[in-house]
Amino acid sequence: MTVIFRHATREDLPRIVALIAEDQIGQAREDAATPLNAAYVEAFAAIQRDDNQVLAVAEQNGAVIGCLQITFIPGISRQGMWRGNIETVRVARELRGRGIGRAFFAWAIARCRARGCGLVQLTMDKRRSDAARFYQSLGFTPSHEGMKLSV
Amino acid sequence: MTVIFRHATREDLPRIVALIAEDQIGQAREDAATPLNAAYVEAFAAIQRDDNQVLAVAEQNGAVIGCLQITFIPGISRQGMWRGNIETVRVARELRGRGIGRAFFAWAIARCRARGCGLVQLTMDKRRSDAARFYQSLGFTPSHEGMKLSV
Repeated sequence: MTVIFRHATREDLPRIVALIAEDQIGQAREDAATPLNAAYVEAFAAIQRDDNQVLAVAEQNGAVIGCLQITFIPGISRQGMWRGNIETVRVARELRGRGIGRAFFAWAIARCRARGCGLVQLTMDKRRSDAARFYQSLGFTPSHEGMKLSV
Repeated sequence: MTVIFRHATREDLPRIVALIAEDQIGQAREDAATPLNAAYVEAFAAIQRDDNQVLAVAEQNGAVIGCLQITFIPGISRQGMWRGNIETVRVARELRGRGIGRAFFAWAIARCRARGCGLVQLTMDKRRSDAARFYQSLGFTPSHEGMKLSV
């Protein structure tokens, strides 16, 4: 039952969209119809074109069971420190509680270190109380307010 | 007393570092010595190389009085929506309360819209209670926890 973590390919995209859409908060926001909404295909291409983006999947027995995205952000503050920004973390509902998310984060944090990041950051919807415990167990500190504005 | 907003140049960098360092939270983290720490120069070059980064300054009477950075992030979720991530917002202490931050954000949000973003996001240190009121007055919602991990 080994889980591997790797960069996503175009073939993974429908499954990634399904993982995002199965989520209680995500389902109202996504379009999981087939054929895949072209907006997802364009977004995937934009991610692939940008060297500072990694869209990653967790795979078990040939099936994609999780996803996350890392954005490597160069910045002036903290003495020119790079930061890794993590978005869109999902593990298949039926496979939660088995340490897959924890191993996936260890992989993602190692990618951030390898790219010279001194900080890893993410924002978590406050409705996800289980996730807060998970991230704090990984060492994350809820030191900031995550502010969002639809434009 | 017109304030203009524009992309930063290499010549603005020492003043940007000084703005970040004058901040109460920032001062312990920065190195405002001259000549400028080479880490800042490298970070500026990395920002300039990346089409999805905008380091911007506010200028008044030829002096840089504010800065912020926008990262345009392509993503799969929310039907392939781009988001604008804003970091390192500063307005010179002696010029606060005059609407400069508000005008700077209007400019930054317009840049995000022009790049097709449907969401603008930032994280704000919870110690900055004045900033929370400011961002909420701009329409930002503190819907997320901002989680940080030094690595």
